[in-house]
Amino acid sequence: MSAIMFDRLVVIGMGLMGSSVLRAAQQNGLARAFIGVARGEATAEKALELGLVGQASTRISDIRPLESGTELIVVAAPVQQMAAIFSSLQPLIRPGTLITDVGSTKASVVYSAMEAWGEMHPNFVPAHPIAGSEQSGVESGKADLFVDHWVLLTPVKGTDPEAQRQVAAFWQALGAKTEVMGVEHHDEVLSATSHLPHLLAYALVDTLATQEDSKEVFRYAAGGFRDFTRIAESDPQMWHDIFLANSKAVLQQLRDFEKHLDQFREAVKNKDSVGLMATLERAQEARRNYRHAADDDS
Amino acid sequence: MSAIMFDRLVVIGMGLMGSSVLRAAQQNGLARAFIGVARGEATAEKALELGLVGQASTRISDIRPLESGTELIVVAAPVQQMAAIFSSLQPLIRPGTLITDVGSTKASVVYSAMEAWGEMHPNFVPAHPIAGSEQSGVESGKADLFVDHWVLLTPVKGTDPEAQRQVAAFWQALGAKTEVMGVEHHDEVLSATSHLPHLLAYALVDTLATQEDSKEVFRYAAGGFRDFTRIAESDPQMWHDIFLANSKAVLQQLRDFEKHLDQFREAVKNKDSVGLMATLERAQEARRNYRHAADDDS
Repeated sequence: MSAIMFDRLVVIGMGLMGSSVLRAAQQNGLARAFIGVARGEATAEKALELGLVGQASTRISDIRPLESGTELIVVAAPVQQMAAIFSSLQPLIRPGTLITDVGSTKASVVYSAMEAWGEMHPNFVPAHPIAGSEQSGVESGKADLFVDHWVLLTPVKGTDPEAQRQVAAFWQALGAKTEVMGVEHHDEVLSATSHLPHLLAYALVDTLATQEDSKEVFRYAAGGFRDFTRIAESDPQMWHDIFLANSKAVLQQLRDFEKHLDQFREAVKNKDSVGLMATLERAQEARRNYRHAADDDS
Repeated sequence: MSAIMFDRLVVIGMGLMGSSVLRAAQQNGLARAFIGVARGEATAEKALELGLVGQASTRISDIRPLESGTELIVVAAPVQQMAAIFSSLQPLIRPGTLITDVGSTKASVVYSAMEAWGEMHPNFVPAHPIAGSEQSGVESGKADLFVDHWVLLTPVKGTDPEAQRQVAAFWQALGAKTEVMGVEHHDEVLSATSHLPHLLAYALVDTLATQEDSKEVFRYAAGGFRDFTRIAESDPQMWHDIFLANSKAVLQQLRDFEKHLDQFREAVKNKDSVGLMATLERAQEARRNYRHAADDDS
């Protein structure tokens, strides 16, 4: 399990995701050298202190290009920062350099790369690890964050198959299961499973927090509410970027959702017992099927 | 902790809540005799088999009135069945009989009691334990379901203070914290903390389940989605009853929520980065305050 895959691993962004990549890669001994870049001085210092990297900086330009050997660059920053990061990375990229990322929306990431480089780099294999937590920051990362989680790879037409194979092997070495998916299809699926639920959780908490008796409301909230709204503690910057980067699919999902919400409202308003019961039973059944598929009780 | 409080404890409805009341009351030795009524023969038999009661039946009329001694009747059925249950209970109720319930909406329960009895009984102390799970049925109950959870008591004008004191003591003996609240205020607060989130979870699961690629959607759903939608596995009959019984407050909450959702949509649609970020940060902050208040990390 602990075969060295790269001479150097460079991680741009050392928040929850980036620091988890470093922890997992270190634990599995996947590289000879680890370099990290953070936006803030404090994060860079913390990463050194935690032993996540041998070299940390706040500027990509501080990193010297590797003269020989194999290298993987992982971009682990909010998606709206990726365009600037890709530009700064250009001097580092040699013919053999592999690149991947952790962005939650893929069309915007691919677009940012093409903007920055003038074309999509054949060795850039966009990735989205479906793993995370509502926590953020360099100290919240975990070496096992990716274990048994999906990492969706979204190569494009010109992606080099060998680069794709190696990047997939890297994520698998961190414990993940990988799957290949089209860029647009990825963004549609994720707008349903992840982006819409986050938007609803933020909107619900915002609704309750602005009510007169919000203190009481939160005081008597039960476990269901707690689970339901936990994701509203996720990093606002990250989700700001996701909602804007994937706005088309998110707005489409929201329209779909509101149609169902309208049906609910009408059923409640009209005391349509039969219609309401049918919807609730259908939803319960669907959720049970999902649970059996996902085995989330284990 | 295990002082006998009543000669007889009668529980009407032996699903998650009713069977948990029985388990907790038995474990704490709160009564000399335990009687249960269930809608189905199988549940009644299971309750006997599990040793939850000494006598089980599917008809309230099978229970003989207590000739002497103290008694508490706990009505633990979906709120729309309470009117019929209160009517059937009338022959059992003697001057000293205490009554409480576990209904999630209180105005409808009080109304049902007044309908059934012609007036509100001074010894009926309506209660709402804010505890539960997405599971249901006699086998899912737990003796510690109420420990450290709130039980909201909603006495009315004519409620006997001594009855209220004794019913509060009973819930506390099951491990709960009790709080007194007005009937209407209760229904408003709960429509925000519980009814609206359940409605959103059901609507979201229903939205996703009816999409073309729903299998894929569920397959790549992450932990946040899992937590967010778990409550959509709750008993449809129970939630059908709650949504209809508390429709006024639920519809009002839904209107409020949709206003916030509209603001979200506009911010995303118009790429209003500043407005979107402000909302996300406000929601994150509110959720954090709630967490600190509720200590749900423990």
